[in-house]
Amino acid sequence: MKKILVVGSVGIDDIETPAGKVEGVPGGSAIYFSLAASAFADINFVGIAGRDFPQEIIDLMRVRQIDLNGFEIVEGKTFRWSGKYHSNMDDRDSLLTELNVFENFSPKLPGNYKESEIVFLANIHPKLQLQVLNEVTKPELVISDTMNFWIDGDRSEVWEVAKRSDIFIMNDSEICLLTGESNFLKAADKFIEDCPKLLAAVVKLGKYGAYVTDGSKEFFLPAYPLRKVVDPTGGGDSFAGGFAGYLALKGSYDFNDIKKAVVYGTITASFSVNNFSVDGLKDFDDGDIQDAYKVMMEVIKF
Amino acid sequence: MKKILVVGSVGIDDIETPAGKVEGVPGGSAIYFSLAASAFADINFVGIAGRDFPQEIIDLMRVRQIDLNGFEIVEGKTFRWSGKYHSNMDDRDSLLTELNVFENFSPKLPGNYKESEIVFLANIHPKLQLQVLNEVTKPELVISDTMNFWIDGDRSEVWEVAKRSDIFIMNDSEICLLTGESNFLKAADKFIEDCPKLLAAVVKLGKYGAYVTDGSKEFFLPAYPLRKVVDPTGGGDSFAGGFAGYLALKGSYDFNDIKKAVVYGTITASFSVNNFSVDGLKDFDDGDIQDAYKVMMEVIKF
Repeated sequence: MKKILVVGSVGIDDIETPAGKVEGVPGGSAIYFSLAASAFADINFVGIAGRDFPQEIIDLMRVRQIDLNGFEIVEGKTFRWSGKYHSNMDDRDSLLTELNVFENFSPKLPGNYKESEIVFLANIHPKLQLQVLNEVTKPELVISDTMNFWIDGDRSEVWEVAKRSDIFIMNDSEICLLTGESNFLKAADKFIEDCPKLLAAVVKLGKYGAYVTDGSKEFFLPAYPLRKVVDPTGGGDSFAGGFAGYLALKGSYDFNDIKKAVVYGTITASFSVNNFSVDGLKDFDDGDIQDAYKVMMEVIKF
Repeated sequence: MKKILVVGSVGIDDIETPAGKVEGVPGGSAIYFSLAASAFADINFVGIAGRDFPQEIIDLMRVRQIDLNGFEIVEGKTFRWSGKYHSNMDDRDSLLTELNVFENFSPKLPGNYKESEIVFLANIHPKLQLQVLNEVTKPELVISDTMNFWIDGDRSEVWEVAKRSDIFIMNDSEICLLTGESNFLKAADKFIEDCPKLLAAVVKLGKYGAYVTDGSKEFFLPAYPLRKVVDPTGGGDSFAGGFAGYLALKGSYDFNDIKKAVVYGTITASFSVNNFSVDGLKDFDDGDIQDAYKVMMEVIKF
């Protein structure tokens, strides 16, 4: 099994969805990712939080054997985000964003982290993503994420991250924005063309599923058929967690492995959005994963 | 092989998409449907057009052995629609709608049509759909379509059509509007519950694919991986054509047949949107269908 280094945000969220409202709950891309990925593989965690970050989650991360030597807990308040989802669950308004201790975050990698075979660069400033890439010692697989905000504001650095990644994960509006294409399949083709090192571009399609291509082969998986989404927050990070976790467990990265990783990513994302905050990631087990895998096999069979 | 009776609109369209612009081209739900379905089965056609409807298409329909005894060509102008698609190809603005000879359309079924085993009620006023249902003699399978416009304006009649149908085809926004649900899977469950006669609800997801359920079993198919959509007009009707055409050819309607019908519908829709107006439906053959079927099998395999 390979080890995964994750660098990303740690947050405290206030979330309102059509299913309800929660305040002061744990969040952040690195938290969602590592709780999802730790079901499959060992995680080296890098992030920063204030003293107000819930001890209960830190304890859970320890139970999951996540290496927390790179998790800085410092004086001050944790990054805070408040958001309200529209009735369709697809769109949301950010009501508040307070960077707090995250403002001056500079990822520090404990020595043993630098040899992690897999690196997941969660959605943070591409400058920080590049800084991490400069510190690691020849990782076998670099998987990166980003968001519209960085594509709009720091496009050339997002491209630099992409060119130094093996797998890039975006949603369809992001890959279209980055490439200037309106068809996400064409956008993925163009993205692969422009990043010769890439093994695959993964395009998340929300409630419709996910698509992945290596530039010649392609795979299109529907979403897990969930009747009720409680809280979409962290769904993408949980997808990345199951995706990277499976690849770490498998230890090989050919296109068939990557396709299966998309299935496991879809499954962990469905666990995550099935409940508020990280609650859906707290106690699923191998049996739940295998049951969900069978549902996915069945739902696409013709 | 079963015969399909189709009743729907016949039109002349002006279409602008990011891929170009065409004027005075053939369109209408019954035209798209019958050109797609006639690749699989025999069609009994009911519709109305003015003398300005292109003879070339009527000739093509004859070559396809579509029974045109129910196609009224009358004095006056054909139904006319002009539309412009947005850059994402998902949204469009209707610039002009002239009912013309379609305004007083009252479907007339030649005697031999009444015993068609399969009836496809394309997107027309639900009152006309019900009128047709009252004229046919115990069809084996009634497949119906509708649109937001009728759901908004004639909701109770749309429900009446649904309750008298065996298969209902809608897109996700339509089934959500009709049932008041925001999750299309839950909407389909509710729809099936409210229509006990239904064998299946088919939910079209545009560029993301299609979903079908019978209330217990379900199937989720991605869209055909098209890099370029030229003209989405008639995509849904072409989907219905391949869908109903396959069922007519197969002659049985269990859930496995319906799943395969969704695959053939997806394929004929991809041929249709690959070119302006009905051009994409003019000369595909069995080989093209089988090639596309292999692509669909490959694209979902994990």
